[in-house]
Amino acid sequence: MDAVIISIGSEVVSGAVVDTNAAWLASRLSELGVFTTRHVTIGDDRDLICAAVGQAAREAGLVLITGGLGPTQDDMTREALAEVIGQPLECDDHAVEHIRSLFHKMGRPMAEANLRQAQKPRGTDLLENPWGTAPGLRIPIGGARVVALPGVPREMRNMFERHVTGAAREHAVGSTVCTRVIRTYGEGESAVAGRIDAWMTPGRNPAVGTQASEGVISIRIMGRGPDEVTARRCVDADAAAIRGRLGEIVYGEGLDTLESVVVRRLIERGETVGVAESCTGGLIAAALTNVPGSSGCFGQGYVVYSNQAKTDLLGVPADLLERHGAVSAPVAEAMARGCRQRAGVDHAVAVTGIAGPTGGSPEKPVGLVYIGLAGPDECRVERHQWSDHLDRAAIRDRTTKAALNLLRLVTR
Amino acid sequence: MDAVIISIGSEVVSGAVVDTNAAWLASRLSELGVFTTRHVTIGDDRDLICAAVGQAAREAGLVLITGGLGPTQDDMTREALAEVIGQPLECDDHAVEHIRSLFHKMGRPMAEANLRQAQKPRGTDLLENPWGTAPGLRIPIGGARVVALPGVPREMRNMFERHVTGAAREHAVGSTVCTRVIRTYGEGESAVAGRIDAWMTPGRNPAVGTQASEGVISIRIMGRGPDEVTARRCVDADAAAIRGRLGEIVYGEGLDTLESVVVRRLIERGETVGVAESCTGGLIAAALTNVPGSSGCFGQGYVVYSNQAKTDLLGVPADLLERHGAVSAPVAEAMARGCRQRAGVDHAVAVTGIAGPTGGSPEKPVGLVYIGLAGPDECRVERHQWSDHLDRAAIRDRTTKAALNLLRLVTR
Repeated sequence: MDAVIISIGSEVVSGAVVDTNAAWLASRLSELGVFTTRHVTIGDDRDLICAAVGQAAREAGLVLITGGLGPTQDDMTREALAEVIGQPLECDDHAVEHIRSLFHKMGRPMAEANLRQAQKPRGTDLLENPWGTAPGLRIPIGGARVVALPGVPREMRNMFERHVTGAAREHAVGSTVCTRVIRTYGEGESAVAGRIDAWMTPGRNPAVGTQASEGVISIRIMGRGPDEVTARRCVDADAAAIRGRLGEIVYGEGLDTLESVVVRRLIERGETVGVAESCTGGLIAAALTNVPGSSGCFGQGYVVYSNQAKTDLLGVPADLLERHGAVSAPVAEAMARGCRQRAGVDHAVAVTGIAGPTGGSPEKPVGLVYIGLAGPDECRVERHQWSDHLDRAAIRDRTTKAALNLLRLVTR
Repeated sequence: MDAVIISIGSEVVSGAVVDTNAAWLASRLSELGVFTTRHVTIGDDRDLICAAVGQAAREAGLVLITGGLGPTQDDMTREALAEVIGQPLECDDHAVEHIRSLFHKMGRPMAEANLRQAQKPRGTDLLENPWGTAPGLRIPIGGARVVALPGVPREMRNMFERHVTGAAREHAVGSTVCTRVIRTYGEGESAVAGRIDAWMTPGRNPAVGTQASEGVISIRIMGRGPDEVTARRCVDADAAAIRGRLGEIVYGEGLDTLESVVVRRLIERGETVGVAESCTGGLIAAALTNVPGSSGCFGQGYVVYSNQAKTDLLGVPADLLERHGAVSAPVAEAMARGCRQRAGVDHAVAVTGIAGPTGGSPEKPVGLVYIGLAGPDECRVERHQWSDHLDRAAIRDRTTKAALNLLRLVTR
């Protein structure tokens, strides 16, 4: 059975607010085995709401609406739902009591407008909301179960768990969905897809798809089955085969990031890392320290933007800078060695490059980056020439990921 | 004239990824005077795409599609658009050339699958994409102008600015729209709105609205007039009055960021800055160095995550750390003074705090941050206690902005 999600709110449709409710609901539904076919976002407009709800109820078994249940005149969801089923709005005494008592508890006077929230179309069910003033609504429309929830994320999530999960499981009867997402770094999307195209045939179960996001290629494996064990088994089998096929470019799954994997591995190995950054200007250190617990492997970093700083803080010889230029393999190596020694760490990563938009030359164009990695056994330097369609921020981001990936590969 | 936005991607409809493209597009369209009535999100499914595009083209003058233009089999947007207009797909030689040359430049082999991206429905226009391999498409369907853009946010945004803004302005014809967006930092949205409510009356021209995004409150002033001069004049008058009313919390307009303003001012004054970061772990340095030309005022920074690093790199006395703890006003001040002296800069900013999720205590809860600022004349320390609804990343982001804002205020 499929679901359609409708987000209502002028602030959402105008782009003033990013809608996170729809993604959250779709994820939870997917975990419960309900497949979301469509999200729709519309403003607080009665006619648009009526049209969207009518269409959704014709095409899906479950319609989840968020927003438009507030106390003000521009909240139109109740009115629109009453119109769709051709019933008048009426006050629910129990809900009036709940709203009055909430305001009493907060010690605040209640505006009469708040009683709008106690209204429901005749013959439908109000859904209790202990987390706020707006109750939800449950209304059968045609063959569809339509549920309206408040738009405030915290209230919406709690209401979903209390009032919708049971109904969602009923809708899921017959097929359960299970999903895994594999994260990779080091190859482009088409190369990755080319290596796993045997799994990507349309109509296959599990469904396998790729997605590129700023250098990270993700492989999503979504399986359906009559029950959770069966669905999970087919997803796990594909995941194992795909991971085997892709090898070392796989760095993790789900919420894993390059930095979280690096921090976890360093701590497991009891090793430490230091960073020396020129063109990334602090981004590698910032990525590592965004991982909770990173103090277990990271103590200090150097942002060495000027040549003087490279000499003062890392001991890079001035004549080396003079001879090869700051953006060069010898300087990247000297930075990494200097950082490793001065910070007293097991691994040191250093970057120097030209992030643009200016500062490039025919010999050293914008996007040229050297990454040095000094470890207990060796020091090596990787050269990258990022594509010229990347802007300054993207070059810095890709360089950060490449440096973290080098650290990942030496801490396997 | 109205617009409908269609986001395509199984990872979006399933909730694996939050769609930020739709909100960004709706915001930009609104700045250009085009009203978005609806967003729709669907998976990579040819039938669903056809149905959604057909419906949107019947109800709106401008239909913007993002996603589904990648090189892999599950990218169905090209096929679906060809089906909607009943034309076959054909290869565009110019696009083939562009894709081949991109791979050549990157020094990577091109999979044949990439040439799928050079296809377009016969008789339609490909839109050049210098920022990636997927060109966009422009197709008239009925009376509507339909534009398909890649789903990668950076590419989508650049493509929108190059290929869509002109068309969007045409859709806004009849009344010219002029917009200015004032950026502020330092007060909450309701406080800012309260100070300028005289300009925020519904139905007024220009329309004035506020928007909060990660600590920055923006005031959008959108004026309509029979021609550009008239529209601009009324917007400029309101902007001047509102800037006067809000005073020093205004840091810029449009694309200005706190860091771009700080870098510009420092360079104008011929002054330099250094940073010493504990809980922000490099974010302040990364923000400053993301501004092109920042080498004119920034040479080096210290990421001092451990106590040892604070002592080694900045000379913070060990007994000061012992006595007050790393997260304290005296340590923030000592870090700032040490940074200013060792880096030999005019201004030094230092932060120390508890970003969580662990590490807090009743006396020093998560979200407690001290920011030290040492300048030519004085050294001062600001204490922040961020709200407990902020997570680790948000605490680090707000602390970075607060530090940059301090620098902004002393370089006026």
